[in-house]
Amino acid sequence: MKTDIEIARAARMEPIVDIAARIGIPGAAVLQYGPWKAKITPDYIRSLADRPDGHLILVTAMTPTPAGEGKTTTTVGLGDGLNRIGRKAMICLREPSLGPCFGMKGGAAGGGYAQVVPMEDINLHFTGDFHAITAAHNLLSAMVDNHVYWGNELGLDVRRITWRRVMDMNDRALREIVCSLGGVANGFPREAGFDITVASEVMAILCLAVDLDDLERRLGNIVVGYTRDRKAVTAADIGAAGAMAVLLKDALMPNLVQTLENNPAFVHGGPFANIAHGCNTVLATRTALKLADYVVTEAGFGADLGAEKFFDIKCRKAGLKPAAAVIVATIRALKMHGGIRKEDLARENVEAVRSGLANLGRHVRNVGRFGVPAVVAVNTFSSDTPAEFAAVQEFCAELGVEAIRCTHWADGSKGTEELARKVVSLAESGMSQFRPLYDDELPLWEKVRTIARSIYGAEDIVADAAIRDQFRALDAQGYGHFPVCMAKTQYSFSTDPNLKGAPSGHVVGIREVRLSAGAEFVVVITGEIMTMPGLPRIPAATSIRLDEHGQVVGLF
Amino acid sequence: MKTDIEIARAARMEPIVDIAARIGIPGAAVLQYGPWKAKITPDYIRSLADRPDGHLILVTAMTPTPAGEGKTTTTVGLGDGLNRIGRKAMICLREPSLGPCFGMKGGAAGGGYAQVVPMEDINLHFTGDFHAITAAHNLLSAMVDNHVYWGNELGLDVRRITWRRVMDMNDRALREIVCSLGGVANGFPREAGFDITVASEVMAILCLAVDLDDLERRLGNIVVGYTRDRKAVTAADIGAAGAMAVLLKDALMPNLVQTLENNPAFVHGGPFANIAHGCNTVLATRTALKLADYVVTEAGFGADLGAEKFFDIKCRKAGLKPAAAVIVATIRALKMHGGIRKEDLARENVEAVRSGLANLGRHVRNVGRFGVPAVVAVNTFSSDTPAEFAAVQEFCAELGVEAIRCTHWADGSKGTEELARKVVSLAESGMSQFRPLYDDELPLWEKVRTIARSIYGAEDIVADAAIRDQFRALDAQGYGHFPVCMAKTQYSFSTDPNLKGAPSGHVVGIREVRLSAGAEFVVVITGEIMTMPGLPRIPAATSIRLDEHGQVVGLF
Repeated sequence: MKTDIEIARAARMEPIVDIAARIGIPGAAVLQYGPWKAKITPDYIRSLADRPDGHLILVTAMTPTPAGEGKTTTTVGLGDGLNRIGRKAMICLREPSLGPCFGMKGGAAGGGYAQVVPMEDINLHFTGDFHAITAAHNLLSAMVDNHVYWGNELGLDVRRITWRRVMDMNDRALREIVCSLGGVANGFPREAGFDITVASEVMAILCLAVDLDDLERRLGNIVVGYTRDRKAVTAADIGAAGAMAVLLKDALMPNLVQTLENNPAFVHGGPFANIAHGCNTVLATRTALKLADYVVTEAGFGADLGAEKFFDIKCRKAGLKPAAAVIVATIRALKMHGGIRKEDLARENVEAVRSGLANLGRHVRNVGRFGVPAVVAVNTFSSDTPAEFAAVQEFCAELGVEAIRCTHWADGSKGTEELARKVVSLAESGMSQFRPLYDDELPLWEKVRTIARSIYGAEDIVADAAIRDQFRALDAQGYGHFPVCMAKTQYSFSTDPNLKGAPSGHVVGIREVRLSAGAEFVVVITGEIMTMPGLPRIPAATSIRLDEHGQVVGLF
Repeated sequence: MKTDIEIARAARMEPIVDIAARIGIPGAAVLQYGPWKAKITPDYIRSLADRPDGHLILVTAMTPTPAGEGKTTTTVGLGDGLNRIGRKAMICLREPSLGPCFGMKGGAAGGGYAQVVPMEDINLHFTGDFHAITAAHNLLSAMVDNHVYWGNELGLDVRRITWRRVMDMNDRALREIVCSLGGVANGFPREAGFDITVASEVMAILCLAVDLDDLERRLGNIVVGYTRDRKAVTAADIGAAGAMAVLLKDALMPNLVQTLENNPAFVHGGPFANIAHGCNTVLATRTALKLADYVVTEAGFGADLGAEKFFDIKCRKAGLKPAAAVIVATIRALKMHGGIRKEDLARENVEAVRSGLANLGRHVRNVGRFGVPAVVAVNTFSSDTPAEFAAVQEFCAELGVEAIRCTHWADGSKGTEELARKVVSLAESGMSQFRPLYDDELPLWEKVRTIARSIYGAEDIVADAAIRDQFRALDAQGYGHFPVCMAKTQYSFSTDPNLKGAPSGHVVGIREVRLSAGAEFVVVITGEIMTMPGLPRIPAATSIRLDEHGQVVGLF
């Protein structure tokens, strides 16, 4: 069996200008980064404003397990499948983060015969977007400490500086540091730390901004810390927003690549799916909708987090109206939710599948709450049996949705033809009545409660008085109309990653609330959220190198 | 008068593929980064191996003053001038660092009518080389702390970890930090710190490597720290060299841009000129020599540092044979060396010029010690008077070199025609008998003494016994054959930046010696060397922004 990288290398890529031309993008609007990658110019994107939008299709998933689901793979496969049945389709994906590639093996550009290419480039520096975000973020950090150093006119309380630094690297040693040591010339020592770049608010902002002006406005609204009397100090106060926007002007242009089947794909932006909303850029999605009849995109984690944030944050704020949703499931993951250990997944076990279906069922009903019609895509593994699949079909039929077997990993677009036809019929039926889950006007605490009850099946939410005060303070300070961005474990509907299936009646404890004033959401944290990963005992980096032909080995 | 950025914007750039074609680079060897920037593929570069080399011309300068000299500007102007008189010429420059752009105003891509373009791109992210260097450097840093975290098999003494982290940002708060705070999960707290990316040994290595294999070999040799019994631990021991090379594979390809007059220029690599050697990449220089009859390049700081390192490190190690050197001087700088304050430079003062000429004279004689014929380029300012220039000419004639007025800043290549003709006559005379200043076999301490006496005019060098022991230890450990890389103030031949002119009889105190085992030189530090700059009270960043057309303002 060929590995992902072998399949990717064997692909016959077409020049990216030809891919662009096929969806009508003229050469002058294509900024090439080598022959296989390009950015699309803002002037051209503006020129599309009056075109009608295509259908937006969300690919989401059941609650993830170590068995894997294949959300990105299904997104790519469905995009290729739609093209195969004669629809003009594009896909929109997130950019992978560089740092984690050197930790555990595995890139993030799909897999098997459903990949975007050139995969090494996409997984390494790509077009430099993440480096630009790192630079813009850290410029603000440097300017904050520099402001304090030169007299601290704004009166920042150094204990209350909330703006950290970022690096696109798994480096646990930087999680908590003391900076500005070494005497007078180096400033005022204080506690500080680094997050990984995907966790930067600048990343979330880039992904939600509709244009350069909106980007700069949002950057200026970033709260970097507070004065001793708790007055917020912003990036605009520090004078950093303009220079940050300059650093990000190229990063804001969507990146065009292609699938293994030479269909166009935007791969652009990649915010964390816990402390941020986990979707590719609004600009890429909107542009794709102008260029194609179908745009297939994905959201991070399971539907309780990814789809909810896609609908309640991205679609609400960008005015997007999804036409249908695909919920990816695997027989293996269903068995794990049914209580089977990873080691025993290969054996047929229809009972375990049945018992795991409660998890899928809740996700299906949840997507329905947003008014979006859904289909279940069963991403096939060779160990799946007909009886197991029949159990899934039966269960889905009772819920009023179809379950369709997909074999895109092995077969490419041939393996998603049926799924593509179903998606077309859902989208063209005009059934979608998209609405966010809650109104902008609901107080922040009530927004969280609504999500916990409707989506997580929880009884209620709880928090210490201090945290409830913070919710009220944010409402009072004028941030009450923001959506909430839930940071919860992706491994359970509850806050306990070990609670598989579809737990209910549980209580969601809120540990922390953070304002992302530039991204324009309020992050609600329900567990330990790791914003700077570490490397494992034997990092993948130790086996990554160039072979005698200058080709990368060990990356995947 | 137009500003540099206005002139640059008004330039009629030609597509970079056309620029490449004009020097014979086929389209398939050109990796475009947008229409105006490109990288040249390694396969193509290898294919040039058997071609003869063109003439290599070094542009260096007298001791810099706040009045400015215009070394980069003269390099660009001379390249254009050589093309103007019918020679096939290329220039090779260093890439500017991003961080400092946000501190003091001013880019580093030449000025006036002698610039390389697109200047904003070159001064911002360009083709991502510095970001790649940052990532490769910090991957090694993360792997070092990760190694300690997971059991420290190699027995690294955390107090003796010498490998810091880097960021392409002026951030004084990161100069000295304590990392790995926060408890067991974050590792073992220790003192650490950040340098600016241009100070990274990875930058020096990239600039000296002759191909990917050499790059990986050098990366593996980097010493990251020592065990308790002082055994060196390398990047190869940590297992990082392969992954670092993967991160750097694109960065190693030379970047092609153009001058305002549409002549080809490589802008590639930018190591610090104090703790490193301050020249663009060997690969760019060597490639240019295969493509053009004349290659004009520059070296950082004045000739005592820049030219000495260019000759003794870069040319020695890369087997380059410079044909001629241009020493840039200005009447203003000569006056400052003659004791005049910056405020009084506008007034004619032939006496001050005469007294400042001692500085220029020593640089001229120093270049002669390397067997390279020289010409003095007087970079003209409007305040210069004929009598002042006559004094320079007379002085130079006595030294046996010509002094030629250049007006490239105002006139482009028209202003360097005479200089170009002189350079051609020097180069084609075959006069150059290039030889490094000292032999590889000389002990390290003697190499330093040779430079101090021959180049700086010093009486001797001194150091504490502990430092002299380090010199002997390095000789004994097999590093004695490395060249030395002097880190000294660029503002004086001595170690006192206030000693203008041509001081002699002074003593050079050695404060510190550092091994750059990957770059393959030994850094000898003679003063306070700042490897992480800070931002000024009002950073340039506060006035950098995008205007209503999306164009950068405030950067220059």
